[in-house]
Amino acid sequence: MTEPTPKGRPGGRTARTTQAVIDATTALLGEVAPADLTVGQIAAHAGVNAATVYRKWGTKEALLREVLLTLSAERLTTPDTGSLRGDLVATVAAVADFLRTPAGYALAVLAATAEDDTSQELRDAFWGDRFARAERIFTRAVERGELLDADDALLAYEAMIATLHFRILARRRALDADIAEQLVDLMLGGLTSRN
Amino acid sequence: MTEPTPKGRPGGRTARTTQAVIDATTALLGEVAPADLTVGQIAAHAGVNAATVYRKWGTKEALLREVLLTLSAERLTTPDTGSLRGDLVATVAAVADFLRTPAGYALAVLAATAEDDTSQELRDAFWGDRFARAERIFTRAVERGELLDADDALLAYEAMIATLHFRILARRRALDADIAEQLVDLMLGGLTSRN
Repeated sequence: MTEPTPKGRPGGRTARTTQAVIDATTALLGEVAPADLTVGQIAAHAGVNAATVYRKWGTKEALLREVLLTLSAERLTTPDTGSLRGDLVATVAAVADFLRTPAGYALAVLAATAEDDTSQELRDAFWGDRFARAERIFTRAVERGELLDADDALLAYEAMIATLHFRILARRRALDADIAEQLVDLMLGGLTSRN
Repeated sequence: MTEPTPKGRPGGRTARTTQAVIDATTALLGEVAPADLTVGQIAAHAGVNAATVYRKWGTKEALLREVLLTLSAERLTTPDTGSLRGDLVATVAAVADFLRTPAGYALAVLAATAEDDTSQELRDAFWGDRFARAERIFTRAVERGELLDADDALLAYEAMIATLHFRILARRRALDADIAEQLVDLMLGGLTSRN
C-alpha cells in the first residue's frame, strides 16, 4: 500500500472511504439542503458505491449525524487559554465561524427542523458533547477562582450559542465580526453590575 | 345589525370576518404545520369563502404574517411593573408561555424555516416590533437610574428570547417553569459579578 492517504489522514482503505464520504457530505451540504441530499449524490461525489455508504451507515440520517459530530469535533475546539474570558471568546467565535460556513449553516437548519427519532438522537449527542466541553471550561475557571461555581454557567453558554443560532435562523441576520466578545462580556459582567 | 359580534369584539361585518379568519388560522396552526396549511382549510374553519380570504390577504403568507403580528400584539405584552427585573421577567415569561402553545411553536418553526421574501418581511416586521417594545423597557430603566445606558440591553433581550427558541427548536427540550427568572437574573447580574 504505497498509495498516499488522502489529505494526509492515517488509516487503511476503510478509513479513507469513511473520510471521503464525510468530506463529500460536508462539501455537498454547502450546495444542497440536507433534506434534498441523497446517498447517491454523496457516493458519486466521494467516488464510492452507494451500497458502500448504506453498508456502513444504514441511512442518510445516520451519515449526517456522523458528519455533524465529526465536523463538530474538528472545528469546534475548546481551547485552554488560561482565562475564562479567553476560553469563552475562542469557543463562541469558533461556533460563529462554523455557522458562517454553508455546511455549518445547513447543519443548524437541520438541527432545528428535522423531526425523526434519529434526528433527536443526533441533537442529544451533539448538544451533550458541546455542553460537556463547555463544562470543562467552567470547571477550570472554578479551579482558578474566576467563578464561584458552574451552576449558572451552562445557561450562559446556552444563551450565547442560542443567540448565534437565533440570529442566523430566526432573524436571518449576519453575525457581527465581534459577536463572540459582545456576548461573553455581557454574560460575564451582566447589565446592571457595570453601572 | 342586531346579530351579536362574535367573541364580543367590536366592528362590522368586515372586522368580524377578519377576526374569524385570524382565529381559524390560529386554531389550525395548533394542528397543521404552516407549510401544509391551505387557504381552503382556513376559510372552511372560519365559515367564509376562500375568495374572501384571497381578496383581503392575497396570499397565505400575508395572512400568516398578520396572524403572527396579531397574536404577538395580543399575547406578548410589555408590562410596566416599575422595575427592570419585573418588566423583563414578565416579558420573557410571556414569550415562553406563547412558545409553549401549539400556535406559538408553529410560528417559531415558521420563522426559522420559511425561505421566501414575504417571510423575510414577516421576520423583520415581527422582530422590529419586539425589539422596539424591549427598547421601551430599557429606556424606562435608564430613566429610573437602574441602567446607565441601553446599549448592551438589546443584546441581552435577544439572548433571552434566543435561548427560549433555541431550547425548543434546536434542542427540542421543554422550557423550565422558571426559565424567565433564570435568564433575567443571569443577564442582569452576570456570571462573575456575583462572586
